This record gives sequence, structure tokens and C-alpha cells, in this order.
Amino acid sequence: MPLTPLTLSPHQVLYEQVADRLQQLITDGPLKPGDRLPSVRKLRAQLSVSTSTVMEAYRLLEDRGLIVARPQSGYYVKQTVLDLPQEPAPTAPPRQATDIDISLAFEVMNRMRDGGLIQLGAALPDLEQLPLAQLNRLMGKVIREDPNLTHSYGTLQGSYRLRSELAKRMLDAGCSVHPDQMVITNGANEAIYFCLQALTQPGDTVAIESPTYFATLEAMKCLGLKALPLPTHPRDGLSLPHLEEALQTGEVKVLLLVSNFSNPLGSCMGDRQKKRLMNLLNQYDTPLIEDDVYGDLCFEGNRPKAIKAFDTENRVLYCASVSKTLSPGLRVGWCAGSRYHTAIARMKSILNQNTAMAPQLTVAAFLANGGYDRHLRHLRRSYHEQMLRMQQAVRDYFPAETCMTRPSGGHVLWLEMPEGFDSMRLYREALERGIAIAPGVMFSASGQGYGNCFRLNTAVPWTEAIEQAMQTLGLLIKKQLAESFLQADRA
Amino acid sequence: MPLTPLTLSPHQVLYEQVADRLQQLITDGPLKPGDRLPSVRKLRAQLSVSTSTVMEAYRLLEDRGLIVARPQSGYYVKQTVLDLPQEPAPTAPPRQATDIDISLAFEVMNRMRDGGLIQLGAALPDLEQLPLAQLNRLMGKVIREDPNLTHSYGTLQGSYRLRSELAKRMLDAGCSVHPDQMVITNGANEAIYFCLQALTQPGDTVAIESPTYFATLEAMKCLGLKALPLPTHPRDGLSLPHLEEALQTGEVKVLLLVSNFSNPLGSCMGDRQKKRLMNLLNQYDTPLIEDDVYGDLCFEGNRPKAIKAFDTENRVLYCASVSKTLSPGLRVGWCAGSRYHTAIARMKSILNQNTAMAPQLTVAAFLANGGYDRHLRHLRRSYHEQMLRMQQAVRDYFPAETCMTRPSGGHVLWLEMPEGFDSMRLYREALERGIAIAPGVMFSASGQGYGNCFRLNTAVPWTEAIEQAMQTLGLLIKKQLAESFLQADRA
Repeated sequence: MPLTPLTLSPHQVLYEQVADRLQQLITDGPLKPGDRLPSVRKLRAQLSVSTSTVMEAYRLLEDRGLIVARPQSGYYVKQTVLDLPQEPAPTAPPRQATDIDISLAFEVMNRMRDGGLIQLGAALPDLEQLPLAQLNRLMGKVIREDPNLTHSYGTLQGSYRLRSELAKRMLDAGCSVHPDQMVITNGANEAIYFCLQALTQPGDTVAIESPTYFATLEAMKCLGLKALPLPTHPRDGLSLPHLEEALQTGEVKVLLLVSNFSNPLGSCMGDRQKKRLMNLLNQYDTPLIEDDVYGDLCFEGNRPKAIKAFDTENRVLYCASVSKTLSPGLRVGWCAGSRYHTAIARMKSILNQNTAMAPQLTVAAFLANGGYDRHLRHLRRSYHEQMLRMQQAVRDYFPAETCMTRPSGGHVLWLEMPEGFDSMRLYREALERGIAIAPGVMFSASGQGYGNCFRLNTAVPWTEAIEQAMQTLGLLIKKQLAESFLQADRA
Repeated sequence: MPLTPLTLSPHQVLYEQVADRLQQLITDGPLKPGDRLPSVRKLRAQLSVSTSTVMEAYRLLEDRGLIVARPQSGYYVKQTVLDLPQEPAPTAPPRQATDIDISLAFEVMNRMRDGGLIQLGAALPDLEQLPLAQLNRLMGKVIREDPNLTHSYGTLQGSYRLRSELAKRMLDAGCSVHPDQMVITNGANEAIYFCLQALTQPGDTVAIESPTYFATLEAMKCLGLKALPLPTHPRDGLSLPHLEEALQTGEVKVLLLVSNFSNPLGSCMGDRQKKRLMNLLNQYDTPLIEDDVYGDLCFEGNRPKAIKAFDTENRVLYCASVSKTLSPGLRVGWCAGSRYHTAIARMKSILNQNTAMAPQLTVAAFLANGGYDRHLRHLRRSYHEQMLRMQQAVRDYFPAETCMTRPSGGHVLWLEMPEGFDSMRLYREALERGIAIAPGVMFSASGQGYGNCFRLNTAVPWTEAIEQAMQTLGLLIKKQLAESFLQADRA
């Protein structure tokens, strides 16, 4: 299995290229589950790269869950790797700050809330799998126990009881934050808006992973900010070499990203990457707004650490919520604003004084009573299974050209079709058949990119209707590809 | 009782001056309750003004509740006018747009939430007089009845059921608004922030009544806006002649005011004034952000109309909440954005997607079950009584130089001491004695004005402790005045 030497790519560092080449061999078949990978010495010679580059590449593949190290023996392809469509390549957005155009997102988002559709569009959690009855029981209890607290304005930063419980939960993400340094918000979006408002002036540039969650783009647009979209790997997240390049220009005011199981790529940085990212931010004295709403939804093993866990200089503004894990309708999120905490607390008091008390006290009670971990175990298992079912459906019904992400947590799946595919057309044709998807352009800062991509929500219990919807989507995609092939043939 | 001819004032139109002169005669004593006022013909001759000026002045005094017309007989001083400290003169803020400085407000506001103090500072409603038990029963009911609705993101504009109930209530304020044209927010502050964000760019000028509710000033500061404070009458509200002057310059992007029982003056425009205001706004094509959180809290008669009631061109953005009438802790407000509705809905979706569902459904249920009117009757009576008690305490304990407003609704009272009085010193000295007040500078856009004024919250059931606190405040004021008198004497 000789490998041809590598050519340098402008979008990837060397060890990532090595890792991707090996991954290709795994997904294409030459390297099968259980096979031993070439030794470091051998690969180094074949590719004309350094030992450390090969080691980094192997570590990356390990992080991606594709290979496993056996002591005194070497690296082996994991037995569990599925025969799935290949992963998309790292993204390569235009490398310049851009005005934000999200004219489409608002219309599409309104449609996505339409109850009559098969909802594969909005990243909604599955209510059937959330502990609604228990939350309701607790809400009844807390409002009876303390009506005056329930109906008062409360303290400016939100319920202390809730902040204490959330601080305890943050220990699982490797973060030690005092409740006094937290502000309760109406969901994570509000927290992110406050952070942007506190850190920027209109016209400033915010570096972001690309593709990007559209609500974040909307908040940035609303505040008159420019976006600098950075190349992002579908599994490892933001490209640090590109981030460093951007930081060197001095034009980046703040970095904003979803650290774990990002939306829409589902990428999740490894700990080493997170540490390196923090070093860069420290070096260039740049704050990070970390959106970690999906972190609790890892499929296997321990919850991944937050980037905040490696923040020795108090410059990460950590934002999260219980909207994906407990209840979207309670509208409870929070922000640990580090050195910017006072500004965040002030924004909260200006905007809406406080978050509704009954939801705050309810979440505090749920976190305190010990049922959260049990609930999470259940939810993670379900979401993992649903993700696998969705991925199998893509393999079964979508054309061979499909590229698909491999999230190890969360509940969104990103699909990439060949260049020229029109996912807005797919969106419209699917709507006519009662199916909602999220077209890729919604996740593009300039409103120009990802026209051949779309996102599916996988937080849906598998039913015959979903299976049929996936089949329908597959047919629509194949039809469009066939037509464009014919047109290209005629031209 | 001959009157000397009037001299023209830069701060008031002619009929207002006439009204103020007559009011002075009523409060100073020459015109006693039951006395007949001079005939129109006689007054016209004495003051060398037109018949219509006298008629306007009499109508204004009628609006102020000071005189009453008896058919075929003339105008008489109302029997109920109390022997109270005189009203402050109309305000005369510096007549230019200013950068906003509210550095004090945040610190003071934090203090105002301190539970250990006698709270005459924050404009908090009295929880003991709110229907908390009933709200809690209803919350338990609605969340049990529809757990999925309670815990979903809901529709972007908020619960339709709630919007329908609020639309019905708005009929009482003379407004006919379709639920589709409303957005539910986390309190009125959030609604006002959305309106400002939707209508302005940083650097724009917003015309405001002066003094101004500090949270509004903070929102404007946060959005990089300039404030143009306008002279305001303690009873009739914003001076329309001054507004027109400002509109003529073309620099006013939007007008923002509390229409009924404003905070902190307690002023309330009459219907004629409201109509005239709308005419001006139409003439100069300028939008109005109307904050009507206190409108339901009139002491007597029917609820005053909203300015929106006279809005024939759909340019008023109406903002209100249930924080003053039902529960601050539920955080439920709304905005009827008229022609700007779509922009408001969009801001809501960007910022926090939706307001927590359980509070929304609870308020909807309360408004639907018919208990709101009964509750309001009770609350209005209590607040009226508490306002009168507070005013009596001012008369009894404060020095003769005190000027005091005469709100006919709401629950704030504005006190003005002689020029040179330092209400920040009073604030600090009162805090040392466990009493919180809101110093006047918090309500000044430039942070320079109203240093001799302060605001008291009257939504406090009368107790011995409150009586003593008022006595203490009176002593502190007298002591400070005496000291400054001595100093002036020595100098």
C-alpha cells in the first residue's frame, strides 16, 4: 500500500493532510477494521515527512475515533468503523472579513417551526425524550414553596441556587467557576448576544468557524459586525493555523465558536487542540465566546471538556443552556463571562432585568435532585442511536456522491453534495412534500456559500415516516443530480 | 383678585402659563375649594390674552383635576384638592442632544434590590397585593394541561392565546391591535430595547421626556444613541411646543416616552394632548415608542387611553408588561410594533427566540378567567391610598420648601428641593439609616441634572416603619438645608 508524496495545501497543515489520506484509505476500503496501520518509520519514509508529523496524524485519527493504539504493537483500524459515505473535506470559506447576509434565515426559520411538517430542519430536541412530567412536578413544588421569590424581580444575575447548581455541572466540563461570576440568561443565544455587545463596536470583525449557526450570524449582523469565516474540519473543528494567520493581522476583535459537537458540522476539538487554541488566544490577547450548548450530549465516554477548562487567563466567555438537554420552553441559559462578567451582568439588567424566576427555580431543583445524570445517560444513548439510523438512511437512500459528517455527539448531521448542487431547490421541493430541511446557505456568513450542503436534525425518534422522508430526499437529490448531469452533457 | 399681565416664557406656551398662574392661586389659598373662577371674559381682559387661550387654560386645569365646569354657571375649584406641598415647575433640561452618562444608575439599582432596606427607591410593586396564589394555581394547571407546549420553543411571536388576551385588554386603552401584530417579550424593557434597536443607528438622537426612567437611558447608552431631553410638565407630560421645535430641526429619529403615570414624574397627558402629539408625529413623519406599563394603575375613573389609540398612521410602537400589575418575576411584556412589527419579531428571534412558555400561558389564563378587572380595582384603590399617605407624610415631615408631584396613577412620587440641595448626599445618609431612595441624577440623561430631586416608591403598604422612614428623611433634608443656609450666610 504505497502512498504518493503529499503536496502542500493552503487549507490544511501537514499532519492533517496525512491523517486525511489515511482516513481515506480506511473509508475507501484498503484499510479494513482490525488492520494494522503502517509503522511510523515506514510512513515517514513513504511520505517524506517528520516523525512528529506522523505521530500527530495518528493522534488525530485516534481523536477522530478511527484508530486505536495497542501498546508494543502499533495502531489498528477500529472494529466499529461503519461503511458510511465519506466525510466532507475541511471547509475553505473566502479568506476575508465579510458583511453578513442572512436574508434567507429568518424566513426559513419561521417555516421550520411549522408543526405540520416532518421536522428535519430546525435543531429541535425531541420533547418525548425530555423529562417534562418531572420538570412540571418540580415547578409546581418550587412556586408553592416560595411564591414571593417566584414573582419578584429577583437578583440581577439570576437565582443564586441555580447558579450554584450550574457551577457544579460545569466541573464536568473541567471548569471551576464561582456562582458570583455567572449570569442567568434566556437561553444561550441571549448570552452570546450580550457577549458580542459587551466586547465589540459596530464595524468590528469577529472570527468564526464556517459553516456557522445562523442565529449567531443574525446576532452579529444586528450589531453591525463583520464576520471572518475560518476553514473548519468536520471532525476537529476550527483550523488553528488559519486562526493564527487571522490573529496575526490584528483585525480579529473576538473569536466565537461552538466548542463541542458544533452546529452544523458536529465537530469537536480534542483537548490538545483546545489547549493550543487557548495558547494562541493568550498570545494574541483575544477573547473567546464559547458556545457549549451541545457538550452534554456526547455519545460515548466522558463529556468533552470546555475550552474554558484551559483558560488560565480568564478570557473565555462561556455560554450554554438547558434548551437541548432539559427544555427549550423554559428558556434558561447562562454565561460565565470571566473578566468581562460585570459588563455581561449590566447588559442583562439593561435588556430584561432578569430571567423568569419559575423556570430558573425549576431547573435548579432538577439539577439538585440528582436525576440529571440518569436523564443524560438515556438521552445520549437515544441520540446516538438516532444519529446512526439517520446515517444509515443516508447510506441507503442518498447517491454515492454524498459526503456526510460523523458527529460524536449532539443531534445535527451535515450533508455535502457535489459542487453545483442546489440545496435551496431541494429545500423547496422537500417542503412541497411536507419535509423541512435546513439549506446550507443559512450557515454561510456572506449568504453565498454552502449552496450544495444542507443540515438534518437527528433528534427524531425513528419512525416509518422519517424513513420515508429520507427516501424522498434521496430521490429528489438523485433527480437533481441526474438533471444537472444531462445539462452538463448537452452543453 | 386682579392678575398681573403675563410675560412670555421660553419654556411654556401661553395657555399653560395661564393655567399655572391659576393653579398657583388654588394651591396658595386665594382660590379655595368651591370658589368660582373668574369668567372667561374677565380673565381675558385682565391678562390681555385671547378667549381661546383662557378656554384652553381652563380645559387644562380640568384635565389636571383641579377645577370642574358647571353648565350655565362657570368653572369652580374642586372640593377635593388637598392642602399639599406645591407642584414642581415644568422641567427645563439643557436644550441640546447629549451623550448619555448613567454611571451611577447601575450601582444604585443593585443597592435598591437589597432586601434588608426600607425600599422607597426601586419602583417595585407590592407583592403582598399581587394575586400570587392564584397565579401559582393557574401555572400548575396550564403546565399539566399541555406539557409539550410548555416546554417547546413555541411560535416566534409568543403564545397566540396570550396575545389574544392582551389584544382584548388593549381595547380598554382605546387600541385595536391584531394578535398577529404583537410580540411577547421578557418585560417592557426588552420591548423598548427591540424598538430602539429596530429604529436607530448608533449616533442617532432620541427625544425623551425629562426626567427619564433610567433603564431607558441605559438601553439608549448601550445602543450608542444620543438623548434629546425635552421640558416636561409634572402633570401634563411632555411639552408639545418644545417637541415641535425639536422635530423641526430634523435631528430627532424617534420619540420615546411613558404615556400614562410616567416614571418618575407621574405625569399623564390628556386625550387632547395625545391627539395633538400624534398630529405632530404624523406631520414630521416620526415614530413614537410608547411605554405604557403604568396605564392600568389609574386611581380613579377609566383607564387613560394610550397614545396608540390616536395613531391613525400606524407609527406608534406600543410597549407594556404585567410586571407592575400581576408579577415582575414572570417577566411577561409585549410590543405592538405597528409598521415596524416585522423588525421587532426579528429582534426577538435573534435575541432569545421566545419568552418562557409557562409564564406566558399563566398570564393568558389569568387574563382569560375574568379576575383581572377585580384585581385591578383592588390594586388601584390600595395604590391610591398609599400615594395619599405618602403625600401626607411629605406634608407632615418634609420642609416647607419641598415641591411634590400629584400623580393620578402609578406608584412613584417625585420630590424637588431648593436649588443646591444634594440628593446624592441624602441617598447616602438615608442608606446608612437603612432607607433606600432613588436620587434624581439617575433620571438625568447627561448625569448632571436633577441633583436636588429624588423619587419615592409609593407601592408600600403603610406601616409604622415607613412612617418613621419618612420622618427620618424629613430630618435629613431639613438638616442639609439648614447647613447650606448657614454656609450661604457665612459666605
